[in-house]
Amino acid sequence: MEEISIGLLGLGTVGSGVVKIIENHQDKLIHQVGCPVKMKKILVKDINKERAVQVEQTRLTTNPDEVLNDPEIDVIIEVMGGIDETKKYLKQALRNRKNIVTANKDLMALHGAELLTIASENSCDLFYEASVAGGIPILRSLVDGLASDRITKMMGIVNGTTNFILTKMAKFGSAYEDVLKEAQELGYAEADPTADVEGLDAARKMAILSTLGFSMKIDLDDVKVKGITGITENDLEYAKQLGYTMKLIGIAHREGEKVEISVQPTLLVESHPLASVQDEFNAVYVYGEAVGETMFYGPGAGSLPTATAVVSDLVGVMKNMRLGVTGKSAVTPQYKKHLKKPGEIYSKYFLRLHVKDEVGVFAEITSIFSEHGVSFEKILQLPLKKQGLAEIVLVTHQASLQDYEDSLVKLRDLHAVQTIESSYRVEGSANV
Amino acid sequence: MEEISIGLLGLGTVGSGVVKIIENHQDKLIHQVGCPVKMKKILVKDINKERAVQVEQTRLTTNPDEVLNDPEIDVIIEVMGGIDETKKYLKQALRNRKNIVTANKDLMALHGAELLTIASENSCDLFYEASVAGGIPILRSLVDGLASDRITKMMGIVNGTTNFILTKMAKFGSAYEDVLKEAQELGYAEADPTADVEGLDAARKMAILSTLGFSMKIDLDDVKVKGITGITENDLEYAKQLGYTMKLIGIAHREGEKVEISVQPTLLVESHPLASVQDEFNAVYVYGEAVGETMFYGPGAGSLPTATAVVSDLVGVMKNMRLGVTGKSAVTPQYKKHLKKPGEIYSKYFLRLHVKDEVGVFAEITSIFSEHGVSFEKILQLPLKKQGLAEIVLVTHQASLQDYEDSLVKLRDLHAVQTIESSYRVEGSANV
Repeated sequence: MEEISIGLLGLGTVGSGVVKIIENHQDKLIHQVGCPVKMKKILVKDINKERAVQVEQTRLTTNPDEVLNDPEIDVIIEVMGGIDETKKYLKQALRNRKNIVTANKDLMALHGAELLTIASENSCDLFYEASVAGGIPILRSLVDGLASDRITKMMGIVNGTTNFILTKMAKFGSAYEDVLKEAQELGYAEADPTADVEGLDAARKMAILSTLGFSMKIDLDDVKVKGITGITENDLEYAKQLGYTMKLIGIAHREGEKVEISVQPTLLVESHPLASVQDEFNAVYVYGEAVGETMFYGPGAGSLPTATAVVSDLVGVMKNMRLGVTGKSAVTPQYKKHLKKPGEIYSKYFLRLHVKDEVGVFAEITSIFSEHGVSFEKILQLPLKKQGLAEIVLVTHQASLQDYEDSLVKLRDLHAVQTIESSYRVEGSANV
Repeated sequence: MEEISIGLLGLGTVGSGVVKIIENHQDKLIHQVGCPVKMKKILVKDINKERAVQVEQTRLTTNPDEVLNDPEIDVIIEVMGGIDETKKYLKQALRNRKNIVTANKDLMALHGAELLTIASENSCDLFYEASVAGGIPILRSLVDGLASDRITKMMGIVNGTTNFILTKMAKFGSAYEDVLKEAQELGYAEADPTADVEGLDAARKMAILSTLGFSMKIDLDDVKVKGITGITENDLEYAKQLGYTMKLIGIAHREGEKVEISVQPTLLVESHPLASVQDEFNAVYVYGEAVGETMFYGPGAGSLPTATAVVSDLVGVMKNMRLGVTGKSAVTPQYKKHLKKPGEIYSKYFLRLHVKDEVGVFAEITSIFSEHGVSFEKILQLPLKKQGLAEIVLVTHQASLQDYEDSLVKLRDLHAVQTIESSYRVEGSANV
């Protein structure tokens, strides 16, 4: 093998980063792989567009077949995004026996299992480290580093946009809309922020993480999702007062054979390792039965961090090529999936209510909860400025989601309850 | 390959953990490796000793040759510790073409290069993830995960004992000796704590980390070491007041072709990711030019965390065996080592002095520093209870170690300077 040829799909921010790293680290790559690495052909939408990196026009093409069918190209790097068309391209590449490195979490969350099977059938590697938490080598750590452990819990701050927004809201007491606008101006949030702020982006990453960590085929539909759009300054103030930090947390929890995967705004006890993860940073907390608590922290996005993960995967593929062992790294899920029912999901909950400030109301409320076996760890009651109303903040002890939600339904029927203002999951520092 | 046979050297806390994990995770191991794994023979000092795990006596031996020369054994796991005799055993094993997994940081820091060469000559793997920061897959992350980046800085809390002691001292304002005693009673510190509290244990780990991270052969002697025995409650109080946290930090810093590696008590700005690492936990902060800031956090020691790392390495070896590619993973250092001179090491420093409380003293002190080009970011002066003395606390701007130390030498000659109470490196949150 005199040199390894790469085909690149997409030359946006990540693609430009990949080109830069491969050029700047050529000597290190040669040292690690044993031969030069050449970026042969790049698929773009517009050949004449100005770009962040200088690339000769002859290497650019708008015809996917020139990349996917080129017999000299050994590895395809996919950083163009998108789902249906991109999937078609990758299937074509795999059938042409090209190894693949992708940063596409949407594609992997939806069609990962299918693509990995095709890769394996064609003796090709398909690596996707960059799809989750850009600069953090978390997938490799789950597969290799913790190989001999039984992972029972993963908690992730896996979306930088929402963590940036929540950090600023908590720090400056600002309103959600104002911080979102700032994030959009700084380029931390997109013009249409829906996928980020509604939790969908995080859910895709949790589907990928839990599939690997639990060795179970977890689909995107298995992940319960709630975003951050409803969080108010008020909630954050109470959180602080009670010793919590609000984060959008992806939780994947396994007990026995049953699992629960969700993404939701969560109040973390301040001593939790994830509570100090600020701004646009990402972190994944992993609890293994043997190893105990570990955490992986780093940039979740950005041109160079994501490109670094892509090139690390590329090095892995190239080593496997030289060893003649591509296509053997895909690990088929070992366990059958059993999702927990709401009656089997245990957690603490934070609840904020507006009630009529009348005699006996508090007793009415607590008796509904105690009928369902839900008891309280913390209680705050404050008069509201609105005439005749009081604000009640409750933090429950561990309770099943079923019991908690059943209580909320009955609470809504109470004459004295004006509104249920907010309700969040609460996570302590100790693992269950 | 119908089954893979293991030989174990040592059945102490880590060894017992390894036996437990291999027994409890047999199905997962078979799934990952494709064949059963058998612990065939275990070298112990005393066959009749009571142990934390049940092992049939027939599998125990006091004769190393029965393990090292057994033709059926494919992999040797070394968790007996020690240096000279252990090295002899491992060389013998490698010459018998047995792959090795070791948790022995002392041995790897001193003789790693030699052993890795012998391993490579005999087409054997030699893995040692467990030797640094037990439960954290940091070596694998450096070699694989950040493969395409240029790492310029690593900072590690890599000794749990000292981090436990410093955490307790800071939290409860206790004296060093009292907390050390508590740590010994809890089993976090050994009866002879020298290697931990004097920084030697951390230095060994930093030698291993910087060899890998910088791709340079760093020897233990290249690491400048200062321990925590001189730290007083006073220092910690001032640290807190100025917004710092005191940690024993291993620093490996590369600028251009030159590197600096040290272990020393360091004042960290509280927003630094390492500042919130509490108790006996370990963490390694890595700065790569492309990826930016990342951090790996987890338990640094303990039977099961360390055993987990050992078994993860074992899985790696066994996969390589089945692929027929053992002995190819050792990466020979790519760069020649150039150590920085004191004039090339730049940092901020914290200095605490007792001086005579006389007119003009402060001007005398500051003029010495300014003659050497050292200026100050923070200054505190307080009267002392001792008659006629004042306490001065200074934090410098970035200065070269040479200039700073030259200033200290002149300071000692000043008539008005009673004592230099303490001096520590200061690290900010921003890199470089």
